[in-house]
Amino acid sequence: MTTGVRRRMGVEERRQQLIAVALELFSHRSPDDVSIDEIAAAAGISRPLVYHYFPGKLSLYEAALRKAAEDLAGRFVEPHEGPLGARLLRVMGRFFDFVDEHGPGFSALMRGGPAVGSSATNALIDSVRQAAYEQILAHLGITEPPARLELVVRSWVSLAESTALIWLDGRRIPRTELELQLVHDFAALTAVSAAYDTEMAAILRSVLAAEPADGPFGDLMERLIALAPQAD
Amino acid sequence: MTTGVRRRMGVEERRQQLIAVALELFSHRSPDDVSIDEIAAAAGISRPLVYHYFPGKLSLYEAALRKAAEDLAGRFVEPHEGPLGARLLRVMGRFFDFVDEHGPGFSALMRGGPAVGSSATNALIDSVRQAAYEQILAHLGITEPPARLELVVRSWVSLAESTALIWLDGRRIPRTELELQLVHDFAALTAVSAAYDTEMAAILRSVLAAEPADGPFGDLMERLIALAPQAD
Repeated sequence: MTTGVRRRMGVEERRQQLIAVALELFSHRSPDDVSIDEIAAAAGISRPLVYHYFPGKLSLYEAALRKAAEDLAGRFVEPHEGPLGARLLRVMGRFFDFVDEHGPGFSALMRGGPAVGSSATNALIDSVRQAAYEQILAHLGITEPPARLELVVRSWVSLAESTALIWLDGRRIPRTELELQLVHDFAALTAVSAAYDTEMAAILRSVLAAEPADGPFGDLMERLIALAPQAD
Repeated sequence: MTTGVRRRMGVEERRQQLIAVALELFSHRSPDDVSIDEIAAAAGISRPLVYHYFPGKLSLYEAALRKAAEDLAGRFVEPHEGPLGARLLRVMGRFFDFVDEHGPGFSALMRGGPAVGSSATNALIDSVRQAAYEQILAHLGITEPPARLELVVRSWVSLAESTALIWLDGRRIPRTELELQLVHDFAALTAVSAAYDTEMAAILRSVLAAEPADGPFGDLMERLIALAPQAD
């Protein structure tokens, strides 16, 4: 019995080592450019032994991606304390940490392609989007979101993805600026929806009521108001 | 010579007929669910004859997608006349017409999957995004966009995509409301960027200066200002 348990542990440890090594390689280059031979060499084992644990590169890629997805979803978790704008800004910092650590792999995944377009990888991407969506609703304290709020939150999640992808392509804007901008974008998209819908207006008011004047939302409002008269 | 020319015309006509039939089928169901047999039946020809023109379903799918991509990019073209907000609103109307006409196929394509994740399909999607980006810059009259403007325009294009996808999933919000909302979102994202960058502020001011008070931008500003004091 003891030996059996130890053997199963060994298998799982080896699998985890291979997943970690593969994730490291897949993070820094497009998955199409990473070979099983390289993964075997980096793990210090033979190519046939890799195939003993994973039937092919796609299954190893999917396992590495699952690990990365769990990691990213974990970074969305934030204590329900203090102003919402500051909470979202901390999450954005951890999101950009993740994007920074996995840059080329993140780009390859989100831009699609032969090695990354499987149903399993798409389901993993969607699970991370769903985790982000649910975290935001939980922080807003809303369990049954109206259709317009769902639209704002889900479309903002996609805006965060595309902003990160554009940042990775040349890094021409400092990431801290983009982290703050995405917090502002969330407020702006909510405000646009609130301008035409009373239910959204009530949600916006309850969010802004708890924001300090020197938080990201308060600062944006002040700057927008300063911008408006000159625009007239 | 004449016979030769006529034969080539016949081949091209047949190809175009097959592409049109395939696009109709691929628009209304996920490409994974459409068979070559169905395409052959809809075109009134035999299955082997379809393979004579296209080596497989993927090549026919890519040809249909190319036709759809050209169609969509064509709908972005708008005369350089009148206020920018009204121009963008007309383009959004034609964009949602396209999304409406090709709903299930558009969703399947943009959500990815085995039949749609080829390099060629990704390149086509990117070409449409690039066409949208270039049209907007042309309407803004800007040939060398600063990095922050490029970010706003490209990330707004992705916001338009995700808004259309969310709309298709249940159609719970009237599309005319979303067409207007996307025009407002463009103004809002530009304003957020302008609040922290003098170059973007100058671009925003030149856009707003030409907008009438009763256009989509003017109307939004009025409503946001009405919303702001209550939020305090």
